Amino acid sequence: MSDFIQIENDRFHDHCGVCGVFGHPEAAKMAYLGLYALQHRGQESAGIVSSDGRELHLEKSMGLVADIFQPEVLARLPGEAALGHTRYSTAGDTSLMNAQPIVIDCNKGKLALGHNGNLPSAGKWRRTLEHRGSIFQTTSDTEVIVHLIARSQARNLSGALADALNQVEGAYSLLVLTRDEMYAMRDPRGFRPLALGQLDGGWVVASETCAFDLIGATYVRDVAPGEMLRITRTGIESLQFAAEKPLQHCIFEHVYFARPDSLVFGRVVEESREMLGRMLAREHGVPADVVVPVPDSGVPAAVGYSQESGIPFRMGLIRNHYVGRTFIEPQQAIRDFGVKLKLNPVPMLLKGKRVVLVDDSIVRGTTSRKIVRLVREAGAVEVHMRISCPPTISPCYYGVDTPTREELIAADESRGRPRLTQEELDEFGGKLDPRQRSIEEIRRYLGADTLGYVSLENLRRAVGDTRSTFCTSCYTGVYPVDGAQAELDPRAAESEELPVVEIQAVPNER
Amino acid sequence: MSDFIQIENDRFHDHCGVCGVFGHPEAAKMAYLGLYALQHRGQESAGIVSSDGRELHLEKSMGLVADIFQPEVLARLPGEAALGHTRYSTAGDTSLMNAQPIVIDCNKGKLALGHNGNLPSAGKWRRTLEHRGSIFQTTSDTEVIVHLIARSQARNLSGALADALNQVEGAYSLLVLTRDEMYAMRDPRGFRPLALGQLDGGWVVASETCAFDLIGATYVRDVAPGEMLRITRTGIESLQFAAEKPLQHCIFEHVYFARPDSLVFGRVVEESREMLGRMLAREHGVPADVVVPVPDSGVPAAVGYSQESGIPFRMGLIRNHYVGRTFIEPQQAIRDFGVKLKLNPVPMLLKGKRVVLVDDSIVRGTTSRKIVRLVREAGAVEVHMRISCPPTISPCYYGVDTPTREELIAADESRGRPRLTQEELDEFGGKLDPRQRSIEEIRRYLGADTLGYVSLENLRRAVGDTRSTFCTSCYTGVYPVDGAQAELDPRAAESEELPVVEIQAVPNER
Amino acid sequence: MSDFIQIENDRFHDHCGVCGVFGHPEAAKMAYLGLYALQHRGQESAGIVSSDGRELHLEKSMGLVADIFQPEVLARLPGEAALGHTRYSTAGDTSLMNAQPIVIDCNKGKLALGHNGNLPSAGKWRRTLEHRGSIFQTTSDTEVIVHLIARSQARNLSGALADALNQVEGAYSLLVLTRDEMYAMRDPRGFRPLALGQLDGGWVVASETCAFDLIGATYVRDVAPGEMLRITRTGIESLQFAAEKPLQHCIFEHVYFARPDSLVFGRVVEESREMLGRMLAREHGVPADVVVPVPDSGVPAAVGYSQESGIPFRMGLIRNHYVGRTFIEPQQAIRDFGVKLKLNPVPMLLKGKRVVLVDDSIVRGTTSRKIVRLVREAGAVEVHMRISCPPTISPCYYGVDTPTREELIAADESRGRPRLTQEELDEFGGKLDPRQRSIEEIRRYLGADTLGYVSLENLRRAVGDTRSTFCTSCYTGVYPVDGAQAELDPRAAESEELPVVEIQAVPNER
Amino acid sequence: MSDFIQIENDRFHDHCGVCGVFGHPEAAKMAYLGLYALQHRGQESAGIVSSDGRELHLEKSMGLVADIFQPEVLARLPGEAALGHTRYSTAGDTSLMNAQPIVIDCNKGKLALGHNGNLPSAGKWRRTLEHRGSIFQTTSDTEVIVHLIARSQARNLSGALADALNQVEGAYSLLVLTRDEMYAMRDPRGFRPLALGQLDGGWVVASETCAFDLIGATYVRDVAPGEMLRITRTGIESLQFAAEKPLQHCIFEHVYFARPDSLVFGRVVEESREMLGRMLAREHGVPADVVVPVPDSGVPAAVGYSQESGIPFRMGLIRNHYVGRTFIEPQQAIRDFGVKLKLNPVPMLLKGKRVVLVDDSIVRGTTSRKIVRLVREAGAVEVHMRISCPPTISPCYYGVDTPTREELIAADESRGRPRLTQEELDEFGGKLDPRQRSIEEIRRYLGADTLGYVSLENLRRAVGDTRSTFCTSCYTGVYPVDGAQAELDPRAAESEELPVVEIQAVPNER
Repeated sequence: MSDFIQIENDRFHDHCGVCGVFGHPEAAKMAYLGLYALQHRGQESAGIVSSDGRELHLEKSMGLVADIFQPEVLARLPGEAALGHTRYSTAGDTSLMNAQPIVIDCNKGKLALGHNGNLPSAGKWRRTLEHRGSIFQTTSDTEVIVHLIARSQARNLSGALADALNQVEGAYSLLVLTRDEMYAMRDPRGFRPLALGQLDGGWVVASETCAFDLIGATYVRDVAPGEMLRITRTGIESLQFAAEKPLQHCIFEHVYFARPDSLVFGRVVEESREMLGRMLAREHGVPADVVVPVPDSGVPAAVGYSQESGIPFRMGLIRNHYVGRTFIEPQQAIRDFGVKLKLNPVPMLLKGKRVVLVDDSIVRGTTSRKIVRLVREAGAVEVHMRISCPPTISPCYYGVDTPTREELIAADESRGRPRLTQEELDEFGGKLDPRQRSIEEIRRYLGADTLGYVSLENLRRAVGDTRSTFCTSCYTGVYPVDGAQAELDPRAAESEELPVVEIQAVPNER
Repeated sequence: MSDFIQIENDRFHDHCGVCGVFGHPEAAKMAYLGLYALQHRGQESAGIVSSDGRELHLEKSMGLVADIFQPEVLARLPGEAALGHTRYSTAGDTSLMNAQPIVIDCNKGKLALGHNGNLPSAGKWRRTLEHRGSIFQTTSDTEVIVHLIARSQARNLSGALADALNQVEGAYSLLVLTRDEMYAMRDPRGFRPLALGQLDGGWVVASETCAFDLIGATYVRDVAPGEMLRITRTGIESLQFAAEKPLQHCIFEHVYFARPDSLVFGRVVEESREMLGRMLAREHGVPADVVVPVPDSGVPAAVGYSQESGIPFRMGLIRNHYVGRTFIEPQQAIRDFGVKLKLNPVPMLLKGKRVVLVDDSIVRGTTSRKIVRLVREAGAVEVHMRISCPPTISPCYYGVDTPTREELIAADESRGRPRLTQEELDEFGGKLDPRQRSIEEIRRYLGADTLGYVSLENLRRAVGDTRSTFCTSCYTGVYPVDGAQAELDPRAAESEELPVVEIQAVPNER
Repeated sequence: MSDFIQIENDRFHDHCGVCGVFGHPEAAKMAYLGLYALQHRGQESAGIVSSDGRELHLEKSMGLVADIFQPEVLARLPGEAALGHTRYSTAGDTSLMNAQPIVIDCNKGKLALGHNGNLPSAGKWRRTLEHRGSIFQTTSDTEVIVHLIARSQARNLSGALADALNQVEGAYSLLVLTRDEMYAMRDPRGFRPLALGQLDGGWVVASETCAFDLIGATYVRDVAPGEMLRITRTGIESLQFAAEKPLQHCIFEHVYFARPDSLVFGRVVEESREMLGRMLAREHGVPADVVVPVPDSGVPAAVGYSQESGIPFRMGLIRNHYVGRTFIEPQQAIRDFGVKLKLNPVPMLLKGKRVVLVDDSIVRGTTSRKIVRLVREAGAVEVHMRISCPPTISPCYYGVDTPTREELIAADESRGRPRLTQEELDEFGGKLDPRQRSIEEIRRYLGADTLGYVSLENLRRAVGDTRSTFCTSCYTGVYPVDGAQAELDPRAAESEELPVVEIQAVPNER
Repeated sequence: MSDFIQIENDRFHDHCGVCGVFGHPEAAKMAYLGLYALQHRGQESAGIVSSDGRELHLEKSMGLVADIFQPEVLARLPGEAALGHTRYSTAGDTSLMNAQPIVIDCNKGKLALGHNGNLPSAGKWRRTLEHRGSIFQTTSDTEVIVHLIARSQARNLSGALADALNQVEGAYSLLVLTRDEMYAMRDPRGFRPLALGQLDGGWVVASETCAFDLIGATYVRDVAPGEMLRITRTGIESLQFAAEKPLQHCIFEHVYFARPDSLVFGRVVEESREMLGRMLAREHGVPADVVVPVPDSGVPAAVGYSQESGIPFRMGLIRNHYVGRTFIEPQQAIRDFGVKLKLNPVPMLLKGKRVVLVDDSIVRGTTSRKIVRLVREAGAVEVHMRISCPPTISPCYYGVDTPTREELIAADESRGRPRLTQEELDEFGGKLDPRQRSIEEIRRYLGADTLGYVSLENLRRAVGDTRSTFCTSCYTGVYPVDGAQAELDPRAAESEELPVVEIQAVPNER
């Protein structure tokens, strides 16, 4: 219906959270609380599968964790092991069928999987597997992994998991639950976080450490890239299922994805974000009266900017916490209606002020443009937009529902846009990648007085990336996994063949 | 929770309904109405998949057809082809995951399946397929068929369907929908009904003709056993995908499953049921004052009994139409509470009367025992139970959620029960199968004054089975499909090997 | 939305059920089961108020009893006394605000009321009370009674109840619950049934005895017309709050409203209905092949007709039990779609047959016309419509949502319709009231071959009305309560004044 | 159930929002958006009544505005006038019956009311009105007003409204809608805000101006204390229905209730709050490393504190936005579980730090105690609690669901607690009211290192109260309306008589 407005979130989305609990008398309840702490990683659907030692029990549903797991639902999840998943789903794919965990029967027995990540090669594998007679009931990449497990010649599950994961390239922080075991695996490049904790003598594995904090678990260490943990009644075993590869931690976890109180890739997220604000102030200082974040994600960087610059921090935009999914738009359309539903400007803090407006990133730019207008209409005399990451010039192939290159405002000059003059370039420190839309053009589109992004160099510094262990492909267009771009970018050749992959068991632990 | 009572239905369950519509501008709406007419075949979940020529659209949900397919749901089912399914599910399997239609992607493209029937060999096939690397996401037999389709070497879908169906033995009335075709198939023995109709220039296929009556479609003919109909824009093709086998129409469709106004296996169901009542009166006449049916399914036989015997028909038990699924039982438990919630005796019609109580079948006997007591407590001086089919001595392996042999009150004398005397046998015409529990014992358990079942011979007559085209295995213990008993009966050997099946394409139609 | 079809029920509606329980440890649970048994008296909303001796607890909701009173809802209804109400509501008034019981605070304390009946004078009283400063929050007649109670000068509640009820004319079977007492009252003419029973040492009051049967209560006696029962911890007191008036039992309770297994006005309903069928056969016998009821309400009369005439009874129309509230109608409209959703004709039983079609009443005639057509299209060669009550020529002012005179097909010749010839009159025994539409005209409208109604004389006989204790105003247009017609009939003068009523306390019991 | 935890909000609650729209083609839609902007004033239920000139249409429901007013619901609210209400309800009163607007029929016609405020004299009026024969169906104060309107002798509605409001003392910002008029009234002391705006030629009245900002309405002025606006098709009339009384704006609107971007009592709320933070820094400065707000309400004061003190502001506690209503608590209870569900401490920002923790108020203190512990457990070495209002020593009788005196941690020394020494008093500037619990005792209970409240004097300065126009009774125990304390405080005499109030019409405008 045309008079509806969808509340959009113009961000990259990673976007899933997993939480497994093993050896705890209230496993499902703890997994539920862990998912609740990971809710920011996916709000569309959530599911928990539990094992009582004999049988797997699954409950999944569309909606928020706190709404889904009512007492009668938790009561149907008995046992001392549980695996939870919370999911972000794409617009066209709001189906429960795609919700996780996925529970299957195969020759390795009955097992449940929850996956955070994305496999750029999933499409090709899917076609290959279908060719070999596999059927697909979901559109999720995870089903590819499941098929590879089932088709593995390995004699046991850990071997089959290793087999499967050695065949797919991409990002996967993966939990698997069987009747009596739990497995936790992280891809050899370590794209996504996955942490191990202890709780009352049992084990917890979760996407972020904030899940541990809520349930009172103790952080032990991160699951290592290429590592498989096998957790059973008798203890925990570590296997390296894949050779080491250059690390590629997702830098955007620190920019936006993760919760600020989480420890991600060995560093507290909040720390990175405040440092990004400081970097912004150093790189793009401007005389102003107030520093105003776009809440909530812009707050830490705005705090940092304010500290560094000495310009007062003000909550000049307040986020509405009661936002529903869709709204009926009045026929006499209200300008920037969708953004107004979400953000309330405080005119008293903005009126007559020169405003430094801090946000974490710009993807399409449409929302940012509305926010700039909102701030200006609330009385700001100058709006200086500051973004706590570099221009997003290229899609991410390791997350879900990411925009295409065409949708990125900072991408690509291919359509013959006028180039910036040297002066214009100089204004922003000459840091422009020649392939990207000029900062000046974006600034004009946004309607801001000035626009500044953190440089890639400073982003790396802010997240503590001293040894180049982060993936920054969305800012550089250079992808760590071969074929990632080819697979998903419509301009890449469709004809490329998937290399024939030998199914080969990794030497097994028992 | 112990204070809950589940309203049980002590019957065999077949139990699914399918309805496909092709070439109609309101295909999904018509499929929905068809499912509504088939609601008696499964009340747990329902689903419709539609095709708009480019994409398949699926909506399925737990609940009743009329509740699920609200306008906004139907609005999400565009196109001129639709396939609907309504499902009965077992107690432990109330999961939406098992609801149909199943929609998959495979090397034959994207397709949807709806299946009415059961495959006794599904368990073995499942193990075989898992062994070969297939994964199973549901517990439904239908997923076996899907895998066999995907693994077929046939070059097109009709070949793959033939391939798949030639490998499984069992009951299957199957509909398949792709973007631009619909297929309708019936197993070579014709266990389950499947009828073809025409509607406004388009085609309809449904489990029972009552679906045609509601939407105003014209009955054309039954889909033949072993036949595959391929319906496209250009017309309808018939293929015989399997050699003829001896027909095995499910006789219980006439006894209980089908709606009385449907034409099933060439005969109107109501006709069979009234004739069963007449047979009962002839075989087990008894002096009485009233003939009272156990509603609703006992009504036609009671009408027949009344006509034949001249004893007045009375609605001495009235069915409550507002029954929910579960009820909270008072702590001061009410005797026969569950049955009372469903059936209201009319004391005025029963008091001081000798009652012939007519029901269609007895499975466990627990409900019948309560009904007899209810009738007696309402004042009946004699209760003569008459059952419009023979004693149910053996499970059905072609339906879902059927009781095991141990649960059948009429099954099996293996635990050394005292045999009936010749006199006792004579009382009921000496028609007892020596393997079954004696009629006298059942009578005593039920608390009836007399008990009479229709003989198998007369059941055959009543349904018009002049050429032995019906499956009567539940009354005889003799199964038409080899291995049916072995597969599902716990007493059968588990070690039997599935014969190696050569995947071989049937010569194809184009 | 125009493509929706509402499943209509072309009947008079009384239509509420009440059930009170006092002195039982599971009072709310018992009231809930009682309401469940009374569900046929109102399916729109239901409510229960319980008292734990200190406070009244209310739960009410739109929907069916079995759906509303889930365990968590019943858990919020503690105490040993409970009052339940199930309600039929009119089309334009599906609001929860009008659901009962009504709970109020007034100078007589906190009290809850549940009312079955209608007050023709409610509209005038409403205007009078508003004039005196009362406010009305519902559109229900019951609120008038509540105001009269609050405004009574009587010093205690029983006096106030007597006061209030002596001022309103009409039908009221009324239950009132306070913290520690329950009152049961019936109007002096006894329009609606109200029965007293015992349960485990406590008391039960219910609209029909079928509520007792389900919960195992023992029927004690009817609450007498003009009687007030006051039930407390110490026992039960009887007060006659109003002088006796000529009895006016609603005859339509026996024709249609009540459940057949209930004892209403001293007679089992089923008995009346079968006798009505016999009367029909005697008055309007016709050569035919089958007697077919319009289910479910036409069944007993059809059974009686069959018995009397010797023509076989057949369930040639089967009622669909899964009917939802509304349906989306296909754009290519299906003829008689709404009726088809509800009734399935069984062609085999109707084809080539001369059918006696038995229904309990005709109000607007639109549905009956469709049913006749349905039966004919199923192959009947003759359709003889038989109605087990006289022509409904006048509205009922003691029930809710009854049609106006203009809507009654049998009412009123005022628009100059051609009169029947003497021959035509003779055909039906010359029993036509000169004011009513001719039977012949109705027959033509319905498309039946013949049409016969039970005569008023025989209706009286069938229900055992030997001393003229029944209200038959819907068949005669003569109303027992003065002003009933004037109040509700649009043609009656609107200007009539409500007589000034002195508020005067009835001598009180303590 | 004992394993459930309720997410509490330890604040005073005012707490309702009203929004009326008149003369706008999308009146209900605009009222809905206005309510959405006012959602913070009440999250339990919401309702809108609209008028299409002939009839009032009501939709109300439990839940959030954005969830309730789905398109099909808004479609049932036609017309160019609408009145919306969003409500906070008390724990024991989550009933829809109490939701507003209330729609009634009375001798002034059909009218709808929405009320923000509380009437301390409601209880007495209720008893008086019940004595005179009124019935009460809700527990809301608003029903008292309604009865007084209905009982007024005034000849028209505006007279009756004036009559009614002149009889009740208390806080009321009231909207009334009839078929063709809307009234907006504010009590003579102006306790609660009520603003008038214009929208596309129509009128809007709302509790806070933030409602105007969302829908694009222009703020015109506040409704004056004692003023009644009558809005009709022909324009807007102003009547002064009550003589001026000393103003008593609720100071807590600025401390906590209102949205920071609203203009309340002529001042932007955010401005007051930041100034409160500055005052705190001046009064209770302490050496520290970070200023951390308790989000969200503590943010502006923390920003102010940081600015004034130069100590860096940090979001060391992050509010969880996905909090549901209730949670199942693990059996192995997690310490401070409820607070943890709502607030996530960021250890990196707190570890080893001396923290100034800023919150807006303390009521019971239980939550604050848990937050202090949370911050300490996250590593803070010192926690200095700063509260941006004075100690809350006395209940509020003009809001709903406010704690009793006994529940206030800062109230009352009557139980012989040890008094503070002069030194202790000196530590906090000697500002202690002798009747209140000592600050030192509260500090000890909270487990904070120091505790400081803003003084009343500075609170007044911060909100710009230069002419003593604010009610500060919760900080002083001195109430502006006689009898307020007596009515609600259990220790006050229950015997006081309500003065006889002459019902007298105010001279009317026509």
